[in-house]
Parts: sequence; C-alpha cells; structure tokens
Amino acid sequence: MNTPVGVIVGVGEGNGAALARAFAQTGMTMALLARQSGLTEELAATLPGARAYACDVADSASVKETFARLRSELGDPTTVVYNAGSGVWGDVESISLEAFETSWRVNAYGALAVSREVIPAMKAAGSGNIIFIGATASRRGGPKTAAFAPAKAAQRSLAESMARSLWPAGIHVSLIIVDAVVDLPRTRRGMPDKPDSFFLKPDDMAASAVWLAQQPRSAWTFEIEVRPFGEKW
Amino acid sequence: MNTPVGVIVGVGEGNGAALARAFAQTGMTMALLARQSGLTEELAATLPGARAYACDVADSASVKETFARLRSELGDPTTVVYNAGSGVWGDVESISLEAFETSWRVNAYGALAVSREVIPAMKAAGSGNIIFIGATASRRGGPKTAAFAPAKAAQRSLAESMARSLWPAGIHVSLIIVDAVVDLPRTRRGMPDKPDSFFLKPDDMAASAVWLAQQPRSAWTFEIEVRPFGEKW
Amino acid sequence: MNTPVGVIVGVGEGNGAALARAFAQTGMTMALLARQSGLTEELAATLPGARAYACDVADSASVKETFARLRSELGDPTTVVYNAGSGVWGDVESISLEAFETSWRVNAYGALAVSREVIPAMKAAGSGNIIFIGATASRRGGPKTAAFAPAKAAQRSLAESMARSLWPAGIHVSLIIVDAVVDLPRTRRGMPDKPDSFFLKPDDMAASAVWLAQQPRSAWTFEIEVRPFGEKW
Amino acid sequence: MNTPVGVIVGVGEGNGAALARAFAQTGMTMALLARQSGLTEELAATLPGARAYACDVADSASVKETFARLRSELGDPTTVVYNAGSGVWGDVESISLEAFETSWRVNAYGALAVSREVIPAMKAAGSGNIIFIGATASRRGGPKTAAFAPAKAAQRSLAESMARSLWPAGIHVSLIIVDAVVDLPRTRRGMPDKPDSFFLKPDDMAASAVWLAQQPRSAWTFEIEVRPFGEKW
Repeated sequence: MNTPVGVIVGVGEGNGAALARAFAQTGMTMALLARQSGLTEELAATLPGARAYACDVADSASVKETFARLRSELGDPTTVVYNAGSGVWGDVESISLEAFETSWRVNAYGALAVSREVIPAMKAAGSGNIIFIGATASRRGGPKTAAFAPAKAAQRSLAESMARSLWPAGIHVSLIIVDAVVDLPRTRRGMPDKPDSFFLKPDDMAASAVWLAQQPRSAWTFEIEVRPFGEKW
Repeated sequence: MNTPVGVIVGVGEGNGAALARAFAQTGMTMALLARQSGLTEELAATLPGARAYACDVADSASVKETFARLRSELGDPTTVVYNAGSGVWGDVESISLEAFETSWRVNAYGALAVSREVIPAMKAAGSGNIIFIGATASRRGGPKTAAFAPAKAAQRSLAESMARSLWPAGIHVSLIIVDAVVDLPRTRRGMPDKPDSFFLKPDDMAASAVWLAQQPRSAWTFEIEVRPFGEKW
Repeated sequence: MNTPVGVIVGVGEGNGAALARAFAQTGMTMALLARQSGLTEELAATLPGARAYACDVADSASVKETFARLRSELGDPTTVVYNAGSGVWGDVESISLEAFETSWRVNAYGALAVSREVIPAMKAAGSGNIIFIGATASRRGGPKTAAFAPAKAAQRSLAESMARSLWPAGIHVSLIIVDAVVDLPRTRRGMPDKPDSFFLKPDDMAASAVWLAQQPRSAWTFEIEVRPFGEKW
Repeated sequence: MNTPVGVIVGVGEGNGAALARAFAQTGMTMALLARQSGLTEELAATLPGARAYACDVADSASVKETFARLRSELGDPTTVVYNAGSGVWGDVESISLEAFETSWRVNAYGALAVSREVIPAMKAAGSGNIIFIGATASRRGGPKTAAFAPAKAAQRSLAESMARSLWPAGIHVSLIIVDAVVDLPRTRRGMPDKPDSFFLKPDDMAASAVWLAQQPRSAWTFEIEVRPFGEKW
C-alpha cells in the first residue's frame, strides 16, 4: 500500500488502456474501472499490482461502492483520470431526451460522483491529480452534437470550477481536450484512406497526461488540447 | 387563434414578467409557464388573451402535457423564451449530487424538452423564435458555481447546437447572457448600498429579447450579453 | 448644430453606406469618412445635412485634422461607427511584413486614433456610442488570415478594453462581428451559384447597429455577431 | 554545428534566462537575443557554446541581420522561443498612440519578423519548434490594458494562424500563456506580503516549454496556460 495509487475511470482499448500503461510506468498501482470488466481484467494482469473494477459511473451508488472497495484494497488514490465519455451523435430533432440525459450522466454527473470520492483524502494530503479527458465539443455545440456537446460542456465547466476551488489546496485539476480521431484498429478500418498523420496515438496522448500530473505547482496548467500535427483545425 | 402565440417558460416577478409584458405589447397572445401558477394568473389577467400554465420543466411528462394543452387552447407558439433557471451556489465539496442534477434538469434538460415541443410547427411554418436566457456562468466555471455553471454551460451548448441546425429552417435560436443583478425589491433590500447603475432593469433586458425576435434573417445574432453600464466586468 | 452628429468611418458601397443611411434615418447629421471622397460625396448628397470627409485612418495626423474640421463644421459626434477594415489574405509565409502592418494600422491603430478624438466630448456629455465593425477572424487565427486575424483580434481587444473603462462614464462601446459575405453586386457576380440565404444584406446589419446605439443603459450589450440564417457556422 | 540550435528572443533575468538554461540542458546550443547584450553575455558564458546577440525585434532590419549572423555562426535554429513582450499599462484615455504602436511592434510585429527568419529551414527539415510566450491579456481586454492586451491578442492570433498552416509541415507552433506574477527579486520586493504560492517560478514555466518542444507529433498542443497553484483565477 505504499506505492501511489492511480485510477483510470473508463478504460477501453484506446486512450484508457494507454493511460493505464503510462501511469503504471511511473510506478503507480493502477485501478482500472469500466462498466464491464473483461478488458480491464486482461489489462490489469499485465500491470504490476493493478486491479480491475466494474463500475457504472452514471450510477452514484455504483461509484460509491466501487471507490469504497478500491480504497480498502489499494489505498487512497493520488491520481484519477476521468476518461468515461460515450456520446450519441445527432441534431436536436433526432436525439431523444434519454440520450441527452445519458450523455450528461456519463460525462458530467459521473465526473462529479467520482471526484467527490477522492477529494477528501487528496485534500488531507495537500496533493493529488484529477484529470478529465474532454473533447472539442466541450467548447462549441455543433449541429450534430446536440447531446454530446452539452454533456462535454458541463464536464469542462465542472472541471474549471473544481480547478479554481481545489488548486489552492494542492489538488491539480486539469483537462485534456482530445481533438482527434484515435488510432485504433476500428477507426483505421472505418477510414482506410486517411494517412497516419491524421490519427492520434493513444500513447502520445497519455504522455501528456503524465506530464500534467508531474508539473511543478508554481506553474500548473488547467487545460490543454491534443491534436495530430496533420489534422485540419 | 390568429394572433401569434408567445410562451415565456419560467415566469417570476423579474425578467419573466418583463418578457411577458414586452412580447404581449408586440401583439402576441402570451402563455405564462411557472411551477406554481399564483403569480402567472395575476399577470395573465393584465395581458389581453394571456393564460397561465403550471409546468415543471424538470419533468418531461409535465412539459409534454402542458404544451399539448397550450397548443390546443392558443395554437402553435411562434416565439418561446426559456427563462427557467434556478441555481444552487457552492463549490464542488459543498454541493450535493442532487443539487447538481436539479440544476442541470431545470437549465438544460427542460430546455430540450420544451424545444422539442415547439420545433415541429416552427419548422413547418419556416419561422419562429426560441430564445434562451443564460448566464455568464455558462462561459466559465467559478469556484462557487460547481452546480450552476455546468448546467448553464450545457444549456448554452445546446442552444448553439440548435442554432446551427435550425437557423437554415428559418427558426431563430438565440441566447441572452444576463450578466447582472436584476433590479427587484428583494435584491435592492439585500444590497442597499449599490447605486442604480449597478442593477439591470428587467424591462430593458426584455427589450433586447424583443429585438432579437424581430431581427431580419439575413443578419441574425446568436448570442448577446446584457449588463448594466455601471457594472464592473 | 442641434441635431446629433453621427460619423461613419470607412464608407464603401456596402455596410458603410447602409450604416450611413440607417443612422441618418434616426435624425442624425452624418459625417462620412473614406480614403477617397468620390462615393461619400454622392452619398452625402442624398442625406440631409451630411458631409463627406477624406481621411486616411492609418495616418494619425489625417485623423486629427479630419476630426478637428468635422467638429467645427458639425459639432461633437455622439455616435461613431468604425467600419474601416481592409485586409490581405494569406498564410504566414506569403504575407509581407508591410501587409501585416497595414492591416493592423487600418483595423486597430486607426480605431484608437479615431476613438481618442471623440471620447473627451462624449465623456463630458456622459453619453455616446462607439461601435466597431469586426469580423469572425477577430476570434480565431485561420491558416489564411495571418495578417487579417491579428489585426482584427487587436481591434476586438481594444474595443473590449474601451468598453470596460468607458461604460461607467456613459459611453456605450460595442462590437458587431460580421460573419458573412455581404450582398453586393461584386460578391454576387463572384458567387453566382449561392442562394439569397447565403448573403448578409447591409441594411439588415445596419439595423442592428442602430439598435445597439439605442439600447437602454441598464442592459447594454458589448458584442454581437450577425450572420445570414442560411450560413453554415 | 551538429548540436541543435535553440534561440530565446527576449532574454531578461526571469523567464528568458530560465528558458535559456532549460533548453541548454537538453543539449542545444543557445542563441540569446535581447535589446542590450549585457545580461545575455553573462548568461551565455555559463552555457556551453551559447552566444549573445543584440537585437531589436521592433526593427525588421535588426531582426534580419541578427538571424543572418546567427545562422552563419551557429546554424539553422530548430527551436525558437519568442519571449519579447514589454507592455505599457493604462486605459484608452491615458495611453499614447506611440505606446500602443510600440506594444504591438514588440509583441506581434517582431513575432512575425522572427518567425519568417526560421520557417524556411524548419520547413525544409520537416520539423522545428516555435513557441510564443503570451499573456492572459491576449484573451481579454481589461480596462487598464488598452495597449498591452491588443498587442498580445494580435500575437496570439498570429500564433494560431501559424500553427494551423505550419503544423502539417512538421513545425510545432505553440503558445504558453503566463498568468502569474513571476518570482523575481524585484517582484518580491514590490509584493512583500504575498506568499510563495502566489509566484510563478521561471524554471517551472521553462519546464513546460521544454515539454511542449518534445511532444510527440501525433498529439501536439497549441496552447497552454501556466499559473501558480495558489493564484486566484
């Protein structure tokens, strides 16, 4: 229980797995959270001391219970990366109220539920990292992001509110805006004509997350965006 | 049923009542929605043809039912102003998950629920106005707005998404960011030392809403902020 | 000398001429400034009491002299619209240092030079309007706007600084961001396939400028954007 | 001539010197530019292979000549940090046109003049870093930043335009927004009551610049802000 504990919330095959590997390499014991624990079990087996937890971030009881277990098994987290963030595509006429709510619940409500579980110990320690993985949609509502953009905007606003109240207590709250198509077998199959320079590599994104977590506190950054060099923006 | 129908959602003694009076003066038949119908009944009695409706915007069934009744009694709304927007003050540690959700439900979820009720007829007519009353908090999360800012950010993002998909159909979606303390007996009592120049007069704000609703469509505005000339910003 | 005096700086056949007509219709005596006075002489002849002045906004001596003459002939301006704003297109490698400087001089330096001429009398009167006609490029540097965007960004920043220091003195400084192709014989010829809904009509834009100039001061707006309803954004 | 060449433009005792030390430690041969070369000579003597150059960034001939000499003496720069950025404080009524122009010339015009000197070789190499040191004022004009904010806004806009056109060529253009009082003997004397947590340490800021210069190119960042953890924002 003496190594620092890192938590990745929302571990899929792309950014989530890369974040888990990157923070594990800094010597952290990792807790890997996902709705189903198939992939996370496999990944945990490759990272020293890591454990997988099934958790539905949209359900505050599930969050509460998962973190209670996690704390008792691994100790208080020192770094949490909130990577949960599915989204439905569609304009205001085609999305349902349910999709609008689910999007918000996964991106914003869950972000608060998770944060509340880890803030008290971080505050007592006078240090800690809470990193949100955001999206360009957080800055602007597009015609087809009537459900996703408001959810990400709420998440970004919450992150900023948290940064401004928690930084003075030594907790580095930050936000990484991913403005890219992630390089995955699935996305490559779907866009076979795009060049390498079009895709963001999860490991490269994760390197920026680790850097944020290690910034000296006289010069902290709240928000960065990451984007492939060949991308139009 | 031949006069245009205007709806104010969220009618209190300040901006809501002023909006109702201002649009009534342009010749509209007004529908006044609030959770309780005491104040709205009184106000409706002073505006020709106006009616009060009790409606809880956080409850999609209540929204659905209210608008069904409203449409059958008055006809399809041509202008809707979404002025619902209570908010809880507090930082991330002091707000509850419930307050966070309620804030979002009133400011963002209800905004979508209401919009969905009026878009089809506006689209069929090729014209209409949907105006959201927002807040500065929509642009930035402050230390003490951990519940309110994310809710208003979600609302603003939704409004922008709607504007970008509905303008080409002739529906003018816009947003008024109120950056002010509203001039009310209650706020004056609470801030007895502030000069007149510090307060926003509801009628002046409402004049801007009417102006937005009348802009010629070759030069529409999405977002304005209104702020007293004497305010520091 | 008893009617209010309005000044349009940068009068061409499109927005400038429309602004001149619109403010003249509110009863103002108009001063029309442009580098050459051919077009402005013709336009002045159609507006009661209006006068044309040749002025190079990039040259502070020309600005000083023009406003001295204007004040002595018409009186102190109560409303000034700064519509000067030519720009060179090109990326960082293709623009020259000279084009970069000229862009800034016309859009930002001239804006300050003009403002300084009218602020003292407005301040003494406790009222006045200074309206800048900006561009979307002021918010974001694009690949091809290496000269134009920095110039418009500087103008917008100056306008905001002025608003925040001059509003309390009763001077309404505001900014209209034109996000459109203006409807002119020239632009129509260049884009023959675009529908009507793609173009901004100068008279409609000018109506918004007049509205800003008449806003009651308990609810002033600093910035609006105007954009045709059919435009993608 | 085989080690990479780094250039710091605008080297003072604070951020400039820290940037020089930080990039020297990555193995770069440093060129240190300042208007006067007293301080830079001393600093150059402590960094292997470093040289000091007197250069007035507001004068394009001086920039041209300095970079010609620098290239012939050290080789083509691979990393340039533009740290020049003096500014005059004052509202629109108190600044002079000259101060407004000087501010722009140092912050924006010089940034373009310097960039044009290094882009061709970076483009030929398919790699390179151009980092601008910006300020919060670039995002917003304040009452007292009528000269400084427009200059920094122009710089930021130029940086963004450059990033969007040069990234695809492999040149990483980025911007560091310093939102802090820098920890210097002078600032400490001026604010003796402020705690350590209020000040930004130049070495900590410089570490972020080095990190930006080393980001893998599938996940580049354009803009970061750095701010002490104890600062109110």
